[in-house]
Amino acid sequence: MTFMHQPVGVYPGSFDPIHVGHMAIVERATQIFSKVVVGILENSGKDPLFSPTERADMMRELYAGNPAVEVRRFSGLLVSFLKELDAKIIIRGMRAVSDFEYEFQMALMNRRLYPSAETVFLTPKEEYLYLSSKLVREVVALGGDVTGLVPEPVRVRLEARYRSSKGRPAAD
Amino acid sequence: MTFMHQPVGVYPGSFDPIHVGHMAIVERATQIFSKVVVGILENSGKDPLFSPTERADMMRELYAGNPAVEVRRFSGLLVSFLKELDAKIIIRGMRAVSDFEYEFQMALMNRRLYPSAETVFLTPKEEYLYLSSKLVREVVALGGDVTGLVPEPVRVRLEARYRSSKGRPAAD
Amino acid sequence: MTFMHQPVGVYPGSFDPIHVGHMAIVERATQIFSKVVVGILENSGKDPLFSPTERADMMRELYAGNPAVEVRRFSGLLVSFLKELDAKIIIRGMRAVSDFEYEFQMALMNRRLYPSAETVFLTPKEEYLYLSSKLVREVVALGGDVTGLVPEPVRVRLEARYRSSKGRPAAD
Amino acid sequence: MTFMHQPVGVYPGSFDPIHVGHMAIVERATQIFSKVVVGILENSGKDPLFSPTERADMMRELYAGNPAVEVRRFSGLLVSFLKELDAKIIIRGMRAVSDFEYEFQMALMNRRLYPSAETVFLTPKEEYLYLSSKLVREVVALGGDVTGLVPEPVRVRLEARYRSSKGRPAAD
Amino acid sequence: MTFMHQPVGVYPGSFDPIHVGHMAIVERATQIFSKVVVGILENSGKDPLFSPTERADMMRELYAGNPAVEVRRFSGLLVSFLKELDAKIIIRGMRAVSDFEYEFQMALMNRRLYPSAETVFLTPKEEYLYLSSKLVREVVALGGDVTGLVPEPVRVRLEARYRSSKGRPAAD
Amino acid sequence: MTFMHQPVGVYPGSFDPIHVGHMAIVERATQIFSKVVVGILENSGKDPLFSPTERADMMRELYAGNPAVEVRRFSGLLVSFLKELDAKIIIRGMRAVSDFEYEFQMALMNRRLYPSAETVFLTPKEEYLYLSSKLVREVVALGGDVTGLVPEPVRVRLEARYRSSKGRPAAD
Repeated sequence: MTFMHQPVGVYPGSFDPIHVGHMAIVERATQIFSKVVVGILENSGKDPLFSPTERADMMRELYAGNPAVEVRRFSGLLVSFLKELDAKIIIRGMRAVSDFEYEFQMALMNRRLYPSAETVFLTPKEEYLYLSSKLVREVVALGGDVTGLVPEPVRVRLEARYRSSKGRPAAD
Repeated sequence: MTFMHQPVGVYPGSFDPIHVGHMAIVERATQIFSKVVVGILENSGKDPLFSPTERADMMRELYAGNPAVEVRRFSGLLVSFLKELDAKIIIRGMRAVSDFEYEFQMALMNRRLYPSAETVFLTPKEEYLYLSSKLVREVVALGGDVTGLVPEPVRVRLEARYRSSKGRPAAD
Repeated sequence: MTFMHQPVGVYPGSFDPIHVGHMAIVERATQIFSKVVVGILENSGKDPLFSPTERADMMRELYAGNPAVEVRRFSGLLVSFLKELDAKIIIRGMRAVSDFEYEFQMALMNRRLYPSAETVFLTPKEEYLYLSSKLVREVVALGGDVTGLVPEPVRVRLEARYRSSKGRPAAD
Repeated sequence: MTFMHQPVGVYPGSFDPIHVGHMAIVERATQIFSKVVVGILENSGKDPLFSPTERADMMRELYAGNPAVEVRRFSGLLVSFLKELDAKIIIRGMRAVSDFEYEFQMALMNRRLYPSAETVFLTPKEEYLYLSSKLVREVVALGGDVTGLVPEPVRVRLEARYRSSKGRPAAD
Repeated sequence: MTFMHQPVGVYPGSFDPIHVGHMAIVERATQIFSKVVVGILENSGKDPLFSPTERADMMRELYAGNPAVEVRRFSGLLVSFLKELDAKIIIRGMRAVSDFEYEFQMALMNRRLYPSAETVFLTPKEEYLYLSSKLVREVVALGGDVTGLVPEPVRVRLEARYRSSKGRPAAD
Repeated sequence: MTFMHQPVGVYPGSFDPIHVGHMAIVERATQIFSKVVVGILENSGKDPLFSPTERADMMRELYAGNPAVEVRRFSGLLVSFLKELDAKIIIRGMRAVSDFEYEFQMALMNRRLYPSAETVFLTPKEEYLYLSSKLVREVVALGGDVTGLVPEPVRVRLEARYRSSKGRPAAD
């Protein structure tokens, strides 16, 4: 039984929007790591639905009462963000075979760019295995109800976004 | 920055024999967890090459100088072993798509049997992605050289086993 | 032996263009369901090669003599289209592993949005397992011959489209 | 709206033992087909836990009140069983990628052996996606609790079997 | 345009029995390599249906008229067989995702054991993508007809084997 | 031992940019084929980072001293390029499951368009299994170091491109 500095885990992603599958990973990660930094990727390469600011705001609101979760935005290489945080652990959820090879590729490249970096994969609950932000956006865009798939304040903003601006990407 | 009791990780497997891919997982796991318990599964359901005692001996020899690694044998459900150790983290290496669904199935079943159990997947180095104990056994059985794929004392015992007893499963 | 109202099956897709793999699914589906509604998705999210009207026209021409097949266009959620038709069965072809997880994701989401919805997967003939509308478009765009991969009237229109308008997406 | 003879669906399997994932497929199948024949495979090629008679008894007990479900045993080729029943539809659950290629292979071979045969794949609920009879047997053999994974009378018999006879395969 | 010594390709396998998918690979390989050595693996680790001698006899009969094909038996490591033949090219058919990772594992291990060894994967025709020796054996064992899936003399021997000796493994 | 005209292998791709995984395939291919034509695809369908001219220049520089490698540009169907070269062998690297089905689809379509065409798959070294041009571009775009992943002159041009023109696609 040792008492020591416990590593920080960084959970990077676009979170556009955050859904209950993400939240399950955050919750599990806080059982393992003393601090979980949720890293919101700014340069996600495609027109986002919510701006990085909006995404960070929603995330912070969600984890306002949880001191183990810190929300940060980052751009550039993930390993640069890790070094900046003096962290080494990357947390990723793994859901399905289609995730698998992409995640492997990223884990191996990140290790090459930063040999101390270690990617740790967690598994969401069965019922979230097939949930993705893209699918959530598509369902809302077509008028479907995503209650239970995203946290309630996110659902409200999602529906407002699609009703008022027809899903037009946000300027930041 | 918090100082707290860091969780114990349990790395279960048959390790028949241990190879360098396993060792890479143990090494990575000790960067994340203060203690890594290597759990050698006794009831692996098929005739083992090395008995559980032999496998535990080789493993203990290997990690003799590393206080962060503890070698234990277990039989029965993995979650019972976890409870006995007062541990919640299961460590598994994930190499390839063929591992993926089996590992998922086990992770989800273990969570069902013990809701606090959390399976954490780590990724070995690229060069070990296609290495398995079964392949090591097959190569040695056919007279191939596994130098560099297993630790040296294991290689010596492996070759002795196949030379003298024609791979006859060990009685314990 | 029971006589009863037999369920209607809905076969949704972009069908841009329809190919012989699609046609095999329609034919098989009519062996199982008394009526098969081919649902042509209008909002397919990318620039279509043929407009929804053109795709519906080609499809109707193809099934003109078959009272068991009805061709409809739809936009919005598939489950809304199902409800409008008072149908519960979604028919999908499944060809390859890459289809598999996407199809699963859609089947599970549709069930969530409409619990009575049931997705039924059929398997095309071996020789069509690797055929897709996208591949057909690419081959024609590069001047390749798709005889035997699409029905003849579709082939003629496909080649005309690429010859005259250089694959410019149709306005509807 | 047509009234006609609705096809019979045959759901073949070892069902050793039946679990809630199987039951979900039976239930869904009865929404599509007027009659679902559950075909219990006698020659499953490995030592079964329950004899075909026991498996049929448990299944019949389970569906005693449901006239749409008929329980039959069969040996030999599935397509011979289909012909004997004057049926053409094979029902299979598809859970994961590892099922996928095996199921495809069987579907294509069955079609070759009996061109009228059509395999229809249904998808269980997310929470059963990783459930299998083999996993159920393993968990019970190690003393784990499978409440909720198999119907209650099956659970009782499973535990009795492993307690009294140490999982010895039943003679029929 | 160069004239030089063209490499020999070695096509190893159990071929128990040879089927039309194997034959398609042999035929394609002879388009690429001046000589194709079919290597019949003696130590296939499970009870074979046909003995290595029987398998070699059938194969030799099949390729009697083709000087580009040579039939050999081998035991032990494939790379030792390659060295014995002064060959470096291993030919394998690749059919499906389930083959893929196993084949990769073997290709990478063979390269490790013999760095000059190169595995070349060929693709059979679509209609043979789901054919395997195991499936052929199962279908014949259950009384199914495999005409068209194996060469005619093999079909005759297969059916004789299952009729007379109930699939009892052959002693060599 | 025969002396004959050895077939030419064509290795098509976008090579935007060429990386060490590609180079390993070229090197292996020259062990099998007397001549390897690297075919640089001009119409790659997306904005390239380097123009076809630039890609051909880099490739020619790289293989300047190797008479077995010829660099060519092509547009249109690959099979037309093959016919123009009087070649029949297509060489492709296969790295991972995600490549697999796409490659299969292309191999089967090419065979359909040109029945003599034969696709031969080679396997790169383990350490390059997860390398791709897209990943190289992404890492450089974010300021990461790709030393060792691409040949040195390519690395210099890559970094110059991203520094000066912010990754703006080149006009040719």
